[in-house]
Amino acid sequence: MRDKRQQVIALLTDFGLQDTYVGIMKGVIASIAPEASVIDLTHSVAPQHIRQGALLLGSSSEWFPEGTVFVAVVDPGVGTSRRPIAVETDRAVFIAPDNGLLSIVLTQQCVRSCTAITRPQFMLPNPGATFHGRDLFSPAAAYVASGTSPQELGTPVCPESCVILDFPAPSTGDGGRTWDGEVLYSDIYGNLITSLKTSLTGSDLLPGEWSVRAGDHLIAELQRTYGDVSEGGTVAYTGSTGLLEIAIRNGNAARTLGLHEGDRVSLVRDRDPRSID
Amino acid sequence: MRDKRQQVIALLTDFGLQDTYVGIMKGVIASIAPEASVIDLTHSVAPQHIRQGALLLGSSSEWFPEGTVFVAVVDPGVGTSRRPIAVETDRAVFIAPDNGLLSIVLTQQCVRSCTAITRPQFMLPNPGATFHGRDLFSPAAAYVASGTSPQELGTPVCPESCVILDFPAPSTGDGGRTWDGEVLYSDIYGNLITSLKTSLTGSDLLPGEWSVRAGDHLIAELQRTYGDVSEGGTVAYTGSTGLLEIAIRNGNAARTLGLHEGDRVSLVRDRDPRSID
Amino acid sequence: MRDKRQQVIALLTDFGLQDTYVGIMKGVIASIAPEASVIDLTHSVAPQHIRQGALLLGSSSEWFPEGTVFVAVVDPGVGTSRRPIAVETDRAVFIAPDNGLLSIVLTQQCVRSCTAITRPQFMLPNPGATFHGRDLFSPAAAYVASGTSPQELGTPVCPESCVILDFPAPSTGDGGRTWDGEVLYSDIYGNLITSLKTSLTGSDLLPGEWSVRAGDHLIAELQRTYGDVSEGGTVAYTGSTGLLEIAIRNGNAARTLGLHEGDRVSLVRDRDPRSID
Repeated sequence: MRDKRQQVIALLTDFGLQDTYVGIMKGVIASIAPEASVIDLTHSVAPQHIRQGALLLGSSSEWFPEGTVFVAVVDPGVGTSRRPIAVETDRAVFIAPDNGLLSIVLTQQCVRSCTAITRPQFMLPNPGATFHGRDLFSPAAAYVASGTSPQELGTPVCPESCVILDFPAPSTGDGGRTWDGEVLYSDIYGNLITSLKTSLTGSDLLPGEWSVRAGDHLIAELQRTYGDVSEGGTVAYTGSTGLLEIAIRNGNAARTLGLHEGDRVSLVRDRDPRSID
Repeated sequence: MRDKRQQVIALLTDFGLQDTYVGIMKGVIASIAPEASVIDLTHSVAPQHIRQGALLLGSSSEWFPEGTVFVAVVDPGVGTSRRPIAVETDRAVFIAPDNGLLSIVLTQQCVRSCTAITRPQFMLPNPGATFHGRDLFSPAAAYVASGTSPQELGTPVCPESCVILDFPAPSTGDGGRTWDGEVLYSDIYGNLITSLKTSLTGSDLLPGEWSVRAGDHLIAELQRTYGDVSEGGTVAYTGSTGLLEIAIRNGNAARTLGLHEGDRVSLVRDRDPRSID
Repeated sequence: MRDKRQQVIALLTDFGLQDTYVGIMKGVIASIAPEASVIDLTHSVAPQHIRQGALLLGSSSEWFPEGTVFVAVVDPGVGTSRRPIAVETDRAVFIAPDNGLLSIVLTQQCVRSCTAITRPQFMLPNPGATFHGRDLFSPAAAYVASGTSPQELGTPVCPESCVILDFPAPSTGDGGRTWDGEVLYSDIYGNLITSLKTSLTGSDLLPGEWSVRAGDHLIAELQRTYGDVSEGGTVAYTGSTGLLEIAIRNGNAARTLGLHEGDRVSLVRDRDPRSID
């Protein structure tokens, strides 16, 4: 049923592109699944930053073709007892170490099967203990892309037994007048992606109703896009992943505002919207 | 007529490879045009440096298969009134914001059609205001790669109405004894690509006829390649794009000579070539 | 015999991904061999570091499909008299400048043919003197991927006439009680890959038999993987290429230990293993 000619394998790792690690994974994939199309989601997850990898994977998979096989490798525990797993959801298949990297996927997508990868016939011969991206995860993904069911890769495990990292949900306070979240990460432009959604406030945000407080900074209004403020101005908006973001037009918000991953960001109600009438 | 199995989509952006933005664009393309072959031209245009993007795109497209669909996204005005456009030339199709990014293409290639991308059926549903690379440019390119005519994407616009950045042509002085140009950019090696062409001088340059003046530096002769000077020597030559370049053999000319984008570079005639006889 | 639909071309260069050089090579390849699948092995060889390129190429090719066409371009002598060559081995085809970049391939693989690339019909028209990656190596690889025999590219040359860089083999001393090698390179994590193999010692290494001396540091035991030592601990192990590596768990060994390419690393026998009985 899976159309082999068009099967996509997407890679997310912390391997960077400086070394040959990613190229070698693609060599292994091409050896097993020559017709698969391989897409780099990113290889610049901060080294061994499982949490960041989980976030990036979770916010990206919806943009790929249904049935895409994702290989995610951020794996400080490579070669130890942590399990390699294959998770099949209603959207895609995810091959990864069971170390929390699939936290968002496991909690936000409908899981159809969850398998510990144990069968040697779906690994390279004599897998080593330090590069499972090559010896284990890439072959597993390539076999699935070639038609192997993810469940054939090994033994079934309970999704509830998988490692899930804690991503604190935004919390509300002051009688619903504030929502507190945090900076999840900053991108190449220094744009700050937060854990807040503007929909939290129960309505589309109207100018003059809610402000954004980030560190010492108060942003009075939510905008549609960067160009809605003047050059160098700070802008808060609903970003491309549906989350509240903070940027500086043609500048670097992370650097200028001095905000980092984990720093608090809040939505603050200025006044009761009903008093507008 | 377009051969779908071999359709190439080439990407040029300032998104970098640190984030998942480029990977997500490829996911969107694979969803719409699974048979297209996607090539990264570069994603390292300096952030929001439209002029640099225009130069790199202009000097690259000739090396791609005829009919390649280029997606160029350097887009500080994303979500504002600047138009997304599709430009069809005798060589290729270009999908980009109308902000000057197609300046070189529009002035140097034969334009067959120019279309403002307006039809929602060729965009993702509910496009946002901050990531048109994903919501608008990638889908448009994928549909064109799948056989949609660029003109079907929206409404025709006059190519003359498109934003064209000023790229000053080299100017001559001193009775034809000098040509003044500028550094366009420096590459990863620190090689300086200039706006001068050696053909400007009306003849192939002979040693002892023309020198190159770059900042305080005088380079007495033009060479064929780096290896024509000794280790650490400064070398001027016709680069791979047909433009005059300045390099230091196994060194970094931009750093060593202290020259940057926009700095003046001149060709200076040493003496009248006819006096050689 | 070669299956065109699945032909892989793998690229290794020092061009980086900042410029359009790699993208243009892929454009040229797509123009000649549209069905070939192009994989980036790496483009981050240190600029003009032929020796590093030779090592990375030598340790990577085995992971690619048989018959893969490798294009390797680290080419400080571009445009000079150094020859472009095509080397066919029992595993793959290698297209590169004859400057030592194929040292490992030529000495460790079974060479079937060695050809100086001289025929203009397999180059771009009017090749320049500064970008043979585009004008010469990419077209040659694309023609081979499309079915041209590597031997058709030009005139046969003797493999023994090719440039081979010296990679000193580990040397033994003190009556077989030490093996001296060196750091070959460090990867993105700061892991140090050495020229030593644990098999040199004539047996699998047992804890308490052999130690690793690296600079001023003594590592008492060999482990299987990073997780076998505690956070921040120094770990020596057989890496993914079969060579002895030194790492710091969740840290950067190159930086912390202050070790660089060329620094000495030794295996030192602690005591006679027979005395254990």
